[in-house]
Amino acid sequence: MSELRCDPLLKRWVLIAPGRESRPDDFAVAITNGQPDHPCPFCEGNESLTGPEVLVRRSTNSTANGPGWDIRVVPNRYPAVAPEPASQIWGATAGFSESGWGRHEVIVETPRHLPLTATHAPEHWHRLFEVFQQRLMDFRTVAGLQHAIVFKNHGPAAGASLMHPHCQVIALPRVPDAVTAELQAGEQRWHQAGKCPRCELLDAEIEAGTRLVATAPEVVAWCPPASRFPYETWLLPRQHSSHFESADPGVLAELARQLSGILTRLEQVVPGLSYNLVLQTAPLHAPALAGFHWRLEILPRLTGMAGFEWGSGWFINPVAPERAARELRCNDRLGEGG
Amino acid sequence: MSELRCDPLLKRWVLIAPGRESRPDDFAVAITNGQPDHPCPFCEGNESLTGPEVLVRRSTNSTANGPGWDIRVVPNRYPAVAPEPASQIWGATAGFSESGWGRHEVIVETPRHLPLTATHAPEHWHRLFEVFQQRLMDFRTVAGLQHAIVFKNHGPAAGASLMHPHCQVIALPRVPDAVTAELQAGEQRWHQAGKCPRCELLDAEIEAGTRLVATAPEVVAWCPPASRFPYETWLLPRQHSSHFESADPGVLAELARQLSGILTRLEQVVPGLSYNLVLQTAPLHAPALAGFHWRLEILPRLTGMAGFEWGSGWFINPVAPERAARELRCNDRLGEGG
Repeated sequence: MSELRCDPLLKRWVLIAPGRESRPDDFAVAITNGQPDHPCPFCEGNESLTGPEVLVRRSTNSTANGPGWDIRVVPNRYPAVAPEPASQIWGATAGFSESGWGRHEVIVETPRHLPLTATHAPEHWHRLFEVFQQRLMDFRTVAGLQHAIVFKNHGPAAGASLMHPHCQVIALPRVPDAVTAELQAGEQRWHQAGKCPRCELLDAEIEAGTRLVATAPEVVAWCPPASRFPYETWLLPRQHSSHFESADPGVLAELARQLSGILTRLEQVVPGLSYNLVLQTAPLHAPALAGFHWRLEILPRLTGMAGFEWGSGWFINPVAPERAARELRCNDRLGEGG
Repeated sequence: MSELRCDPLLKRWVLIAPGRESRPDDFAVAITNGQPDHPCPFCEGNESLTGPEVLVRRSTNSTANGPGWDIRVVPNRYPAVAPEPASQIWGATAGFSESGWGRHEVIVETPRHLPLTATHAPEHWHRLFEVFQQRLMDFRTVAGLQHAIVFKNHGPAAGASLMHPHCQVIALPRVPDAVTAELQAGEQRWHQAGKCPRCELLDAEIEAGTRLVATAPEVVAWCPPASRFPYETWLLPRQHSSHFESADPGVLAELARQLSGILTRLEQVVPGLSYNLVLQTAPLHAPALAGFHWRLEILPRLTGMAGFEWGSGWFINPVAPERAARELRCNDRLGEGG
């Protein structure tokens, strides 16, 4: 059973999740044996190895939980959160511990066991984004769920344990403090300036140009000034919007085009790169927020967190974002910017 | 030249440090070639491969920057910070960027190229702690330095790039926000309760016993309730103290005894484990603080940070600290507790 715990002085939250301890690890096994020692649960034909579909895009003449799909959402077999709140928690100091419940799902991106170096075509990313939107909308109907993190761990250095391309989503009964702090800072600056502060920064970046990777009327990609990671890239809608669920097909299409292009380019710049994708969007039940702007973050994992980072909360990034953007925009497919 | 940058909405600081990009990596090379392809700069006899000693413990008949030492502190060849403030910074949006300067030093723990599985005897850890204290005292005399992080990256999964046992220290011109937040939370609770809140939690842990690893009149070791990592263990002085520099020899001796025992036990429980050590102590120029309690953190690196962690700021820990403590205290050397 999972438990949410917080250090009362550090305000740092941890999901104690014993259910995840025994999950398989393709990469650890592959390092010793060359090949994973189990059939891939995400390949077409192996649907019985996962829980039942929560959401699926499949051909009309196929059967639920059988072959014939192109995107499939299933419960995570080793969830970080329990499906329902526990009536009793079993561990820590009273007041700093609560039930760790919610939803933890796997979005199997494709029936095919693609190599890590492959990137989906823009059209397929577009379909995946529509699935993200659908999951976020569905979570709004579950009483008690407050926030969802949609993410992808790609490659062993990014925390992936299975090779088959997949995203994940974890929906939580609590908005993380870091998200709340960003919302509050944004609202406060909006009240001062009458404009979304991220929109303002976006305008300044477009004006300066040095950190731009790609621009289009719908979406801008750039390496943020305080990039935590080498080649960290953020994709944001040009028109202000706090909720990814509200993005229209034009925005999703351009987002898909830029993401596909940047991932292809990253693989050229750093072959075999591991990365995380993280969708930063407003809490499930928040109204449209004038001071918060959703974004999709690409977080390449060339550098590790180490003692200094744990001790300070700061990051060390050896590749200046100005240089990262210069290298990433050497690609005509990415649009007019740069 | 290094630069300190902050995202204005996230309040997240990053050291942009192009000087670290070309540092050698024993582990990456060893994975492909079996052996590092360069002589170890930290072995006795290779002193000319490092910068000049900043601090050293050496035999009286030996010569500076030659053989004959047992602990040696030298500047990091690939520093995260520049040695002096830059008169001009070169990059980010005004107001969210400043010169990234300070001190980045390597504390070479021993002249011998020990394997990763080795742990120093308590007496040697005691000598290392005295060196930590001396560096912290010395940094107090450098105008502008505000805070120092002493840490150790042990093994490739913990961010180490060189195999030879070494610690590091980075001194900064700014107290990290996470440290300030903990100091403020501690002072606030001290004013409410008239007691250091960490001392209170410590008393409760000793009373409960379930997460204790070792206790002695000078030092307690336990797995904190909100452990971020499997087998995360904190060592704290029993008597309240905010500054590691002020710890007396009795405390250091017991700290050394417990650290040596726990690292030995960890190697039995998880052979070949990578870990970080982090010293959390008060800022250099802070007075003795009633609400902050220094600690040494052992952070085993069995789990990685991935998309969920970046998106939420939360951690997922699959090993409950109650279980971790039970496994770690199966060792008589660790003292009377448990």
